[in-house]
Amino acid sequence: MTDCNSPPWWQAAIKALDHASEQRALDHQAQLTKPPGSLGRLEALAVTLAAHQGCDRPSAEQVAVRVFAADHGVMAENVSAFPQAVTIEMIRNFATGGAAISVLARQQGASFQVINAGAAGPVADQPDLLNTPVAAGTANFCEQPAMTEPQFEAALKLGREAVDTAVANGVQIFIGGEMGIGNTTAAAAVVAALIDGDSASDPDSLVGAGTGVDSSGLQRKRAAVKKGLARHAELIAEPLQALRCLGGLEIAALAGAYLRCGQLGITVLVDGFICSAAALAAVRFNPALRPWLLFSHQSAESGHQRVLQALAAQPLLALELRLGEASGAALALPLLRLACSLHNEMATFQGAGVSNRDD
Amino acid sequence: MTDCNSPPWWQAAIKALDHASEQRALDHQAQLTKPPGSLGRLEALAVTLAAHQGCDRPSAEQVAVRVFAADHGVMAENVSAFPQAVTIEMIRNFATGGAAISVLARQQGASFQVINAGAAGPVADQPDLLNTPVAAGTANFCEQPAMTEPQFEAALKLGREAVDTAVANGVQIFIGGEMGIGNTTAAAAVVAALIDGDSASDPDSLVGAGTGVDSSGLQRKRAAVKKGLARHAELIAEPLQALRCLGGLEIAALAGAYLRCGQLGITVLVDGFICSAAALAAVRFNPALRPWLLFSHQSAESGHQRVLQALAAQPLLALELRLGEASGAALALPLLRLACSLHNEMATFQGAGVSNRDD
Repeated sequence: MTDCNSPPWWQAAIKALDHASEQRALDHQAQLTKPPGSLGRLEALAVTLAAHQGCDRPSAEQVAVRVFAADHGVMAENVSAFPQAVTIEMIRNFATGGAAISVLARQQGASFQVINAGAAGPVADQPDLLNTPVAAGTANFCEQPAMTEPQFEAALKLGREAVDTAVANGVQIFIGGEMGIGNTTAAAAVVAALIDGDSASDPDSLVGAGTGVDSSGLQRKRAAVKKGLARHAELIAEPLQALRCLGGLEIAALAGAYLRCGQLGITVLVDGFICSAAALAAVRFNPALRPWLLFSHQSAESGHQRVLQALAAQPLLALELRLGEASGAALALPLLRLACSLHNEMATFQGAGVSNRDD
Repeated sequence: MTDCNSPPWWQAAIKALDHASEQRALDHQAQLTKPPGSLGRLEALAVTLAAHQGCDRPSAEQVAVRVFAADHGVMAENVSAFPQAVTIEMIRNFATGGAAISVLARQQGASFQVINAGAAGPVADQPDLLNTPVAAGTANFCEQPAMTEPQFEAALKLGREAVDTAVANGVQIFIGGEMGIGNTTAAAAVVAALIDGDSASDPDSLVGAGTGVDSSGLQRKRAAVKKGLARHAELIAEPLQALRCLGGLEIAALAGAYLRCGQLGITVLVDGFICSAAALAAVRFNPALRPWLLFSHQSAESGHQRVLQALAAQPLLALELRLGEASGAALALPLLRLACSLHNEMATFQGAGVSNRDD
């Protein structure tokens, strides 16, 4: 995908888990004052974070929330219940603290930034906004690839840089989010291309109501996805080409961010349908990334369940959310933090003088 | 159930919800910068808390966690993987901060107390322990009623007093928990008595592994439940008699606490199988209590799902927990708090200058 002789950054190796720390965490869990396994998935979360962080006292305190926003050429097919102007209006709302994810990040002391990855028009600068559009939205994937090769590489790099900056500031958990009117259509197209080989192809079932289109809007979304799949059929067997031809600038940025997290050994807490589409593309490109991804929630968006199945992911929450923005991931963050607190602070049977079942 | 002429306190009326506040909360949700309904169950949580609190800015900041602990005469039937001594050992562990719920309450700034409702032996005083045993455990319900009438009334009152004290300190959310070696057997017996009329009676399916009994232990638990149901068959059609004859001092205290919360208009966040059994008894006694109960999680304990169905309850979490102690309720608390933050702090379409779908 690049003309340089050295391989591009996104091909660099994913970090290996620390299996010694993982085993020590499992042994420690067995000593805590509770029946074995009785904290269910909280135990597995603590063990996974120990394996990620290579330490005996895992932590999820230092969290970066980065929302990538961009516009979509496929809006020419009339695929959303909201006008395209909402993308830019919401970028301002994120930056001024009024969006759902702004509230959730602030309440939990997470560092927050919205990144203009490619809104269709100019966006005024704001303190919590990184105003670095790659392009004025994507092209309509029904007509041509959503991104040129240079645009796609720039979008991946935007994700990489967001992670590099966060890691330089000591982040332990990376939460990516997205906003872009029309982006459930783009995500559905990417997913349809990626899981085509897994099951009887049925792109229609991957296309949902998004922000709330009516039935004729849903038909237009499905028609657009089919047109895009047909137009780019020769390229999209390759995961990153599927992402380039059918995805969005914010979806590509997320995939780049996730790959960088895996390279640097940072836990990713994946949000809903669109983030999962980016995760699926990244994992199909490099399956070694998968153990670095935690899946936060099962969204109400049609199609998410099939993406999660394709990733063998069991999400932590199922709260009928369908907002995006990283809101579901932010709502799952307390579970990671409390899993760490339990792991680090509970008494052991021996320390507390409590009889174990084997006594 | 009492000889006095005035009706007992637990028959007092349950407070009505504030439907005007509920409607205002619904209207407000429709104005927030998100597609309608896209925050799923978080929206309903905020609306419910507004209806409970009769205000426009609901809050879940002031939380009381009260763990009721007691022993069980049915332990004579050898129904647990752990020795009975663990009840008293764990009371100390709760009070000294080493148990799972101790950690979860502390991390979230909730007020915490363990209440000795009836351990089988003496318990040393501790700062975070209310040491007020009603009896040295229950009687074996296979032989006689678990509690005498005075014991049962004293246990209900223990729950009432815990709530009265918490409310005097300004609590908004009451989380009850339980600990008592043998208490999944008692809870299963109570549930079997209460839902007998709802479906084909199958007490076996309500009896699970608890702290982790093996298959012969499971058979002993099932046999004990059947023996108890048969012995007390004439009384247990009445919900509070089912609780008295088959339950535990901690389970009765929880039922008393829940009824008192409903009388005073305090939100209850119900924990797992045993707390749900107490909730079922209380709701069967007075169905007006039901709207005051939020259900935190679907536990891994066999039988919990049927209790939730009997209560028409949709739990917030499903994390394969089976610890009790209020741990599942404490893990769901962040969702209540974040639901309130979103409701109170998100921008409106008009305030943020974001186009709504109707524009």
